[in-house]
Amino acid sequence: MNGFELWSPGASKAEVVIGDVRHPMERAEFGYWRSDLAVEAGTEYRFSVDGGDPVPDPRSHHQPAGVHGPSAIVDHDDFAWTDERWRGAPLSSAVIYEAHIGTFTPEGTFEGAIARLDHLVDLGITHLELMPVAEFPGRRGWGYDGVDLYAPHHGYGGPEGLKRLVDACHARGLAVILDAVYNHLGPGGNYLGSFGPYFSDRYSTPWGDAVNFDGPGSDEVRDFFTGNAEHWLEHYHLDGLRIDAVHAILDLSAMHFLEELARRVDALEARLGRTLSVIVESDLNDPRVVTPYEAGGFGIDAQWSDDFHHALHALLTGETVGYYADFGRIEHLAHALQRAFVYDGTYSEFRDRRHGKRPEGLAGHRFLGYLQNHDQVGNRARGERSSHLMSDDLLKVGAALVLTSPFVPMLFQGEEWGATSPFLYFTDHEDTALGAAVSKGRQSGFKAFGWKPSEVPDPQDEDTFTRSLLDWSEPETERHRELLDWHRALIGLRRESPDLTDGRLDLVECAYDEDARWLVVERGSLSICCTFGSTPAPAPEDGEVVLTSKDPGSPESVTIYRT
Amino acid sequence: MNGFELWSPGASKAEVVIGDVRHPMERAEFGYWRSDLAVEAGTEYRFSVDGGDPVPDPRSHHQPAGVHGPSAIVDHDDFAWTDERWRGAPLSSAVIYEAHIGTFTPEGTFEGAIARLDHLVDLGITHLELMPVAEFPGRRGWGYDGVDLYAPHHGYGGPEGLKRLVDACHARGLAVILDAVYNHLGPGGNYLGSFGPYFSDRYSTPWGDAVNFDGPGSDEVRDFFTGNAEHWLEHYHLDGLRIDAVHAILDLSAMHFLEELARRVDALEARLGRTLSVIVESDLNDPRVVTPYEAGGFGIDAQWSDDFHHALHALLTGETVGYYADFGRIEHLAHALQRAFVYDGTYSEFRDRRHGKRPEGLAGHRFLGYLQNHDQVGNRARGERSSHLMSDDLLKVGAALVLTSPFVPMLFQGEEWGATSPFLYFTDHEDTALGAAVSKGRQSGFKAFGWKPSEVPDPQDEDTFTRSLLDWSEPETERHRELLDWHRALIGLRRESPDLTDGRLDLVECAYDEDARWLVVERGSLSICCTFGSTPAPAPEDGEVVLTSKDPGSPESVTIYRT
Repeated sequence: MNGFELWSPGASKAEVVIGDVRHPMERAEFGYWRSDLAVEAGTEYRFSVDGGDPVPDPRSHHQPAGVHGPSAIVDHDDFAWTDERWRGAPLSSAVIYEAHIGTFTPEGTFEGAIARLDHLVDLGITHLELMPVAEFPGRRGWGYDGVDLYAPHHGYGGPEGLKRLVDACHARGLAVILDAVYNHLGPGGNYLGSFGPYFSDRYSTPWGDAVNFDGPGSDEVRDFFTGNAEHWLEHYHLDGLRIDAVHAILDLSAMHFLEELARRVDALEARLGRTLSVIVESDLNDPRVVTPYEAGGFGIDAQWSDDFHHALHALLTGETVGYYADFGRIEHLAHALQRAFVYDGTYSEFRDRRHGKRPEGLAGHRFLGYLQNHDQVGNRARGERSSHLMSDDLLKVGAALVLTSPFVPMLFQGEEWGATSPFLYFTDHEDTALGAAVSKGRQSGFKAFGWKPSEVPDPQDEDTFTRSLLDWSEPETERHRELLDWHRALIGLRRESPDLTDGRLDLVECAYDEDARWLVVERGSLSICCTFGSTPAPAPEDGEVVLTSKDPGSPESVTIYRT
Repeated sequence: MNGFELWSPGASKAEVVIGDVRHPMERAEFGYWRSDLAVEAGTEYRFSVDGGDPVPDPRSHHQPAGVHGPSAIVDHDDFAWTDERWRGAPLSSAVIYEAHIGTFTPEGTFEGAIARLDHLVDLGITHLELMPVAEFPGRRGWGYDGVDLYAPHHGYGGPEGLKRLVDACHARGLAVILDAVYNHLGPGGNYLGSFGPYFSDRYSTPWGDAVNFDGPGSDEVRDFFTGNAEHWLEHYHLDGLRIDAVHAILDLSAMHFLEELARRVDALEARLGRTLSVIVESDLNDPRVVTPYEAGGFGIDAQWSDDFHHALHALLTGETVGYYADFGRIEHLAHALQRAFVYDGTYSEFRDRRHGKRPEGLAGHRFLGYLQNHDQVGNRARGERSSHLMSDDLLKVGAALVLTSPFVPMLFQGEEWGATSPFLYFTDHEDTALGAAVSKGRQSGFKAFGWKPSEVPDPQDEDTFTRSLLDWSEPETERHRELLDWHRALIGLRRESPDLTDGRLDLVECAYDEDARWLVVERGSLSICCTFGSTPAPAPEDGEVVLTSKDPGSPESVTIYRT
């Protein structure tokens, strides 16, 4: 293999450092430096600018010894893919499963995950969504403080491991989506700023300086991120990306970064001949994000629908703290089912301002619907899943509402059997001061919710990670098997019912009684009758029971009828 | 008249202060405070919150003694309008004239301007655009430091004076547009922050903290500005607004402030039955700004087209400093004439990034075209007009290119006769320290352009203002009369030629030779043949000369043919 490339527009000298030898690079156009040095796959190297200490390649494809170690050359032609016939899968019929490689299996690796793929196929999952795998500091972490954005974490199994997992998924007809973080980089091991204007102080984000998406030098910064998307989709045969918190991607330029990303992924889809999807997390309730770019939008395929989550969660748990203050009525849930955003130009008490815009004409497939996800569980002080917060009966009602919704349903790992393990916030910062600051920040951050610091698990404690591991013996026990069967039945029903995958939000009919506490959702010939309290939801005349969680009309029950 | 209203959501007490008497206000919904106290027009008052010093009403309609003095009640039913039959005028056939009330006439008042309206009508102007008139500190200023955004400057003649000017314009068939500044408030006399969360530190602007358009409490802040637009259009019968530097209106919410503004002005237009226009200054080269909101845009009627200005200015002056580095070729001007934005997704050296997006399908009427404006003149160290920087021959070529363009043409006061007075940057800050800081900042700000501080006029010096006054004796002299006649002839031609007001950019044809230095612009049956150097621009076969600045084809000439 030949050559190294580095972008460092302000440098007056750049070198590739292999072992102790510094090889000079030549200045090229647009702030790039190049070297024709021939190297073999596996060669470890670093870059140095202006004679400074050698540090990892910003575009490193592999960090075999972590974020501070050398980068290693990867030969992507060297993997024996077996998925030649795979052409991807559409989101419109998808059932997504969000997993965290480190806690999904006891092994905590890509290889470990392969052993559990048949469980997902048996459940009816179509898309596996991986939480971020880009190299982050330490051995344990959610992955949102990744710093080597092109390198699969060495502890998970590195490039080879990720390719084996994707290949194994495709062999089973499972598509794979990867969570990618483009709004900030982690605080530990982030060397990007030493190479060029990757960051900007014109805007601030919750995680510090914003990425420079629209200032001087931003063309190459944008290319770093769009190139990252192409890298995963092309070299790892991934089927899509989930982009983290796009409301923190601050870009005032006429071609918004998200539109540029969507256009580049569309071009890649045409070139590769495989269906590629871009899903985003957005807090904006802005229809523009998922409107096609031909219609003035950014052209993103779908976004997470937190309003639907919040409406469902607040209704089933009765929680009213924080952002749940804006939700809690059946009316909110009905609004979400029919218009995706509950706040679509209306006043939000939590935000103290009007929020959102009505997503006119957009299909339900533009939105992911879920009862929980890593954030909604893990951002709680004690990482409680829905199964910790509601009865199994209500859990079944919630699952039915998600899996019969007009949205693309998504489960969080273990949700299908009501896993008892929490999903806690865990880190493994090697920098002692940073680790202590993260522990303190986390543990003192829940005072407003009534938690003392000592009651909040320490993210740096290995036990916090270990407690979050899924227990795969659970699905063998009766309670969990029953929940698993329920989810499997609902997914099966969805996959065989065109009425349920129909994304036309204007066809969704809702009837409810806020006081009597029942809700009936009509999806074509199917009626989902939810009884939250003691008054039975009215059943359709001449309706045939298709699925029921318990006796139709009994408290905390859901029954699905076909008419 | 009855009642006072104040928004101050964090206050625990609010009072109307008249003379030395404090009248309590009652807390109402959404952070508002109200008092039913009956008062007469002219009553002077202030507001106090939490028992603090009384300060002016943020929505004061009149500040008879300046920004620090009391506010005064205005009865808007008390003016004898004579424009009952006025229904406004469309932008598509407009010829706009930008004027600064303080320097337009020796009187420096609304009343003084009335005496010059016949000059504008005779010239063929359809729309008078006033630089900001909202109360700003001191007696002299451009107006972009306004702090009482609902009050016409007392020194210009206050509410009564502005109404008389607008009424006099309408009586002559002239529409009036007002420049309004919504991206920041001036540094002197700005009391808004003491009442509520008008500002945000989430973003920064060149003028300090950004206005809070999307944070907590922003509904009322937005209403302060949209209400301001409605105030001017309704109470002063204005025909439109020009919104300053909208690229510094930082708003990530789903309903962008500009879209909300456009929708509210559209609703007002329907209610009032008069044509109302919103024009903006935008540095974004983003077609979204002037795309109808039904098509995913913000729905603004038109924007200033700086790319066209820069292309024209750089070509005619040969200047290459600052942002002119991105321009200078005939190709740039041709690109602007055919696609409005020269930078429409292409790399800009000045910005060191790709800039803009192609405005597909938008009409030329969405853009204002000009050879100069207050910024392009006044933001130079010495306030030089185009007439100071190029020969009268080239000035005529420039005028022809503006007034035959597919854009809405705009002249800057005095341009029509090649006024010799500069338009300098002048201020009159009463706060000595602030005044000194402004002087120093201005005078040392042109080092990069080769000017010593002592060579840059001091903005606080009254002479800097006086030198900027138009000299109305000039149009009586031969050189100036010739230029005036040329502009009048061009405007007359535009107004009688449907080919010139046709805004379809795809019908504009350009032929040019960069080395031989000629350009021919074809607008339907008219050919505008510009000879910049010694090689004559080719004349159309069988073309009849409609207008010519000198011998057709001679150096620095323009000839308009009809075929």
